[in-house]
Amino acid sequence: MISFICSAVCSRTQYARERVVPAVENIKIPCIVVSDLMLCRRSNTTTAGRSGASTFRRVIPIPLRTEVGLAVNGGRHMTVPSFRFSRPVIVVVVLLLQILLIPPPTEGSPDKCRLVRSLRDEIAGYRPVVDRVLSYVQDQRGYKGRTWTALSKFTDTFGSRLAGTQNLENSIDFMLNKLRTSDLDNVHAERVVFTGWQRRKEYATLVSPRVKNLAILGLGGSVSTAPEGIRAEVVVVNSFDDLFNKSSQVSGKIVVYNQPYVSYGKTVVYRSMGASVASKYGAVATLIRSITPFSLNTPHAGEQSYSNGVKKIPTACITVEDAELLNRMYNRGSKLEIFLKMDSKFFANATSRNTIAEIKGSTDPDKVVLVSGHLDSWDVGQGAMDDGGGAFISWNSLVVLKNLGLRPKRTISTRSSLVSPQFLTPQSQVPIPIFHFPNVSNEPSSLTRLSSLTDSTIDAEEEGYIGAFAYLKGHKSELEKFNLVIESDEGTFQPYGIAFHGSETSACIVAEVAKLFDSINATTMQSSKDNVGSDIEVFENLNIPGLSLLNRNEKYFWYHHTEADTMAVEDPDSLDLNTAMFAIISYIIADLSVELPRS
Amino acid sequence: MISFICSAVCSRTQYARERVVPAVENIKIPCIVVSDLMLCRRSNTTTAGRSGASTFRRVIPIPLRTEVGLAVNGGRHMTVPSFRFSRPVIVVVVLLLQILLIPPPTEGSPDKCRLVRSLRDEIAGYRPVVDRVLSYVQDQRGYKGRTWTALSKFTDTFGSRLAGTQNLENSIDFMLNKLRTSDLDNVHAERVVFTGWQRRKEYATLVSPRVKNLAILGLGGSVSTAPEGIRAEVVVVNSFDDLFNKSSQVSGKIVVYNQPYVSYGKTVVYRSMGASVASKYGAVATLIRSITPFSLNTPHAGEQSYSNGVKKIPTACITVEDAELLNRMYNRGSKLEIFLKMDSKFFANATSRNTIAEIKGSTDPDKVVLVSGHLDSWDVGQGAMDDGGGAFISWNSLVVLKNLGLRPKRTISTRSSLVSPQFLTPQSQVPIPIFHFPNVSNEPSSLTRLSSLTDSTIDAEEEGYIGAFAYLKGHKSELEKFNLVIESDEGTFQPYGIAFHGSETSACIVAEVAKLFDSINATTMQSSKDNVGSDIEVFENLNIPGLSLLNRNEKYFWYHHTEADTMAVEDPDSLDLNTAMFAIISYIIADLSVELPRS
Repeated sequence: MISFICSAVCSRTQYARERVVPAVENIKIPCIVVSDLMLCRRSNTTTAGRSGASTFRRVIPIPLRTEVGLAVNGGRHMTVPSFRFSRPVIVVVVLLLQILLIPPPTEGSPDKCRLVRSLRDEIAGYRPVVDRVLSYVQDQRGYKGRTWTALSKFTDTFGSRLAGTQNLENSIDFMLNKLRTSDLDNVHAERVVFTGWQRRKEYATLVSPRVKNLAILGLGGSVSTAPEGIRAEVVVVNSFDDLFNKSSQVSGKIVVYNQPYVSYGKTVVYRSMGASVASKYGAVATLIRSITPFSLNTPHAGEQSYSNGVKKIPTACITVEDAELLNRMYNRGSKLEIFLKMDSKFFANATSRNTIAEIKGSTDPDKVVLVSGHLDSWDVGQGAMDDGGGAFISWNSLVVLKNLGLRPKRTISTRSSLVSPQFLTPQSQVPIPIFHFPNVSNEPSSLTRLSSLTDSTIDAEEEGYIGAFAYLKGHKSELEKFNLVIESDEGTFQPYGIAFHGSETSACIVAEVAKLFDSINATTMQSSKDNVGSDIEVFENLNIPGLSLLNRNEKYFWYHHTEADTMAVEDPDSLDLNTAMFAIISYIIADLSVELPRS
Repeated sequence: MISFICSAVCSRTQYARERVVPAVENIKIPCIVVSDLMLCRRSNTTTAGRSGASTFRRVIPIPLRTEVGLAVNGGRHMTVPSFRFSRPVIVVVVLLLQILLIPPPTEGSPDKCRLVRSLRDEIAGYRPVVDRVLSYVQDQRGYKGRTWTALSKFTDTFGSRLAGTQNLENSIDFMLNKLRTSDLDNVHAERVVFTGWQRRKEYATLVSPRVKNLAILGLGGSVSTAPEGIRAEVVVVNSFDDLFNKSSQVSGKIVVYNQPYVSYGKTVVYRSMGASVASKYGAVATLIRSITPFSLNTPHAGEQSYSNGVKKIPTACITVEDAELLNRMYNRGSKLEIFLKMDSKFFANATSRNTIAEIKGSTDPDKVVLVSGHLDSWDVGQGAMDDGGGAFISWNSLVVLKNLGLRPKRTISTRSSLVSPQFLTPQSQVPIPIFHFPNVSNEPSSLTRLSSLTDSTIDAEEEGYIGAFAYLKGHKSELEKFNLVIESDEGTFQPYGIAFHGSETSACIVAEVAKLFDSINATTMQSSKDNVGSDIEVFENLNIPGLSLLNRNEKYFWYHHTEADTMAVEDPDSLDLNTAMFAIISYIIADLSVELPRS
């Protein structure tokens, strides 16, 4: 029911379906967390989107059911009052909420834009650039297929690129060399320090009432089991509510979460917090149904974090099929026992590098449009989709511009950040410092606030979005000069438009740019009050406009964080179009007579 | 090109797309085998359909390209002459072939049927039975969901059921008990003797130029590697033609087949024969791209067989993604090395059982309609789809009839055969004896010929379709009394009609029955000159009419022979409808005033 209301309320904002009621932790203001006991309020809610490393500052807890909520921050287990509504009342409430909470179309909506004619004409004047870039990437004698070819050679050569591995460092060296030979400007790397995590041997077996191996992937940051492993009875739950109802049975058991998949944003809370919540009740380990709408008995990796004060217990994802199997057996009354052995390693002060390359602006080189993807990957699969595709369309968009001799007024910088959110350490998912300032994105002084952070504060919380944050730290004096941050980390399937987060006027400008993609059917413009990236969120929260491409990524989570993240997912033509759109958007925004206004 | 012609020629016959140019081996007449150098001739060609255990008696070798063919029987490597045709010539040839080889619509086609009015009225008179059965399986207080519930309990309890395992024997005991408590008649098991094969430890790793584990599944009947494993250089090929071109490089190497997926029927030849063909050129092992249109890095198991006289080399399937990866690396000139270790076990004189249950006919109990699926499964996955679903809709169709008090004139017998085609031993894929008689299905005396086979002949070639053949052997004196054999072994997804193989008049009768499924949109009638089952093919080749259900099994080969063959594939409502259709069809055919005429 609440999901329905939330969807109704939020469905007009981008990513709303994915972003309602995600994980909340270490929030400094009171909130109720778990299950679907919370209603988001648009104006003050931000989330980290699908990555699950959620960061929201204000929520309005509206408990509507006789259920048990859990204040994760304090670990309190509390009962909230019961309200039950008839269908007509619900309809009225939904309508009222829509009227009250949903604003009229923003200025970014075509019908609200009041851009001066000269600016619209100026943007339309880039049509020859658009045609030239699109022709080049679709021409066999031009750049056609070259992003796919380069990405496949890269992933085939290096495979997965876990932060902290020599493999990643080798791949960075390879890319730096490639960027230099592409004759881009200012090619260099910037150091990032972090605490690493590495998977070693791990396996799980249902040992009673019958023997069945369970395909697992230990979650990022999980502790190991004792060397001899754990053999324990199983409690299967289908939600946090279900866990609370069974909490008296949990002590000393392995908790199996068999939560249904609703959406990644809604469901990932079970992966990111499942261990902590079960640990409060004395569970010795958790096995969590993989966060995916489709499975071929495919376990999915992902990050998780332990709440402060809970005992850290081993935690892994199992397949959808095995979770359902265990659930059925448990519900028939079978006494299930699982043997679990996991071994992982932490290493402090690991280092890696962000990779930078640029096309220096012709007249205003200090002003920057940033185009980004992340180079590191999970240790399963080949990191072709997440986020090799994003990194390669970023780099290649600059190469395309370079090859065509297109140098804009301002600088276009491409960055592949390291240590993307999924590689958080056990202390991770602590929001990076900027999030400790309520409403920072609404305050004009937010950049000043960031600048006032001491280095020690930054160093103490180095683990979340560490590559992005290291970059932010290293470039904080330049942030006022950032005109736009662009990211691709949600797939490079067929693009169909632009997702944008920024001021109303800037959204109107980007909407004009989107119109130029009519020849490739990619003119959809989604102006969002939410952030539109994960790795660039740190910038968006500083009021810097953010942009990503809308693409046909319906199957993204089939492959996400699995062995199936390979080149088979990537399509040459789609990569060409993504590359072209990145090149065109970054070129136009970096070349326009006006900068994107932040307010 | 040839594929195109074959498709054009054969596309009007059921399964034609799947069945053109499959594996051929141990054929007593001259033929050219490999690649697509062969054109089928409708009237004399039969195949075993998608199972890959192909059995065809006559083909017309029409080599159209300057390529190299391979006569597998003799192992000769021969060059065939070159013919090159222009497009207009090809079009004319195709049209001519269509005119010459494709018969006009059969009597089974609605526009050709000339059934007497009284018989059509009699069949239409079963409408109340149809409605009653459909209501029952769709009624929450009736049988709704019970096939799914029973199947899930069964697969959850026993998991995979490889022939020769105690697990399978336990599951047979369970089923026998269940059938007895369902108050069916003549519940019993019949012994089957076979040579078993069992997978033990196996793994493969790309060791150079980089280390990458390869997900593999050893193929049924594969020999082991030496205990220390094999480390060898790799040759990647994309077809048999490609292998022949590279044959001078193959000796001492591991051959990786990266053949594209066309259809299961066309592509499975690489799995079933790839090892033998590569072995002729001195390969030390083969790794074969899994036979599937879609993969999440999913290896697929399956049977293979060694040709006479070749050295038996270890062989396994790898994933689509890894095959493509290796192919790309190889084509870039990388020297690839793979380490392969496989361990399997053969055991002679293993025994298992066919499971039989019946509803005895009220007036003609000796006449039989057989409803079948196979109970055993591969050792990966849970055997829910292949063929738990088929076995359970067979059994439950009888239970439904029993519960409704519907006893037809003739007997309905349900059989779950053991040792389905995939569990062939290394001596397997030897066509079972009946196939040694050319044109047996066209000869009225075929049953006599079968009866004249000595037991020793039968015993000597006991491995193919062993459960079906054991049944055939045990019941050969009764075969004249078999009215219809029904099988489900291609999925129990949403049904939409009937596939039938039999005489023209019998097809007309079945077409009338199909019309009764209008309320569930399952009236499609496909009358086929090919066999319509795999495990019942031995009956169909004896001129006994065969029937299976058409169902929405487009994703069947996504799951086929993998860890993903679980209850997640099965849908309760579809199982209900499949059960109902089996019950209705078998009841009507067993109760009609006439038997299905064989000619």
